[in-house]
Amino acid sequence: MDTETTMKELHELECWELLRSREFGRLAYHLLDEVHIAPINYAVDGNRLIFRTTEGSKLLGIVMHQDVAFEIDDVEADHAWSVIARGKARVLEGDEAREIGLERVNTWVAKDRFVLVAMEVTEVTGRRYALLDG
Amino acid sequence: MDTETTMKELHELECWELLRSREFGRLAYHLLDEVHIAPINYAVDGNRLIFRTTEGSKLLGIVMHQDVAFEIDDVEADHAWSVIARGKARVLEGDEAREIGLERVNTWVAKDRFVLVAMEVTEVTGRRYALLDG
Repeated sequence: MDTETTMKELHELECWELLRSREFGRLAYHLLDEVHIAPINYAVDGNRLIFRTTEGSKLLGIVMHQDVAFEIDDVEADHAWSVIARGKARVLEGDEAREIGLERVNTWVAKDRFVLVAMEVTEVTGRRYALLDG
Repeated sequence: MDTETTMKELHELECWELLRSREFGRLAYHLLDEVHIAPINYAVDGNRLIFRTTEGSKLLGIVMHQDVAFEIDDVEADHAWSVIARGKARVLEGDEAREIGLERVNTWVAKDRFVLVAMEVTEVTGRRYALLDG
């Protein structure tokens, strides 16, 4: 049916609930003049998202430009939702890193990711959609 | 098991095959000084990805900064893959837009998206991962 979609903005609390219910999303970040995107595991810590990465990874472009965006979504047969967070990311060092601990982030891939990055979320929005028939 | 992951780079042809097999991904783009990310339907046309959007959408920030990145992925119980494309996007107008046609892009949400955007893909990379136990 080519009818109008039902789209609903999610409340900020729902967005955080969805963020806490997942551990995989996509991070968009600046690298010099370019925008890059990478699939990544994460964990929620208060109003921050925590990532693990490696020395020398492109993701460390955030050291030069902290502005990042992050997305999770889910698509089912008749509905979908997505949550988008924006904020500032920075590498955690020393006590800050130890306080979180690498094991906080359940990385599905290589465990040799010894750099923790925290994204301070300044804005989170979400939408739920009833999907149209193809 | 906390063993090393098996990660495999996908061949460019595999990446395009995966891109052609899907119709939903995430687009990262510049908006003034910020990086934004949005879930979006797409279609493959040659070496281009085609999107539909609306007048006044934030996505039209691409008019000012064409550099974009796009990602699709799939996560199963014991493996995952992702494909990342980078390139330049621009709004299609006149004959170029008519040649493609709105119906080329199967939008799951509102059909009132009358602006076609083409992303000329300049680089595509993909990875397949065998996932570690949680």
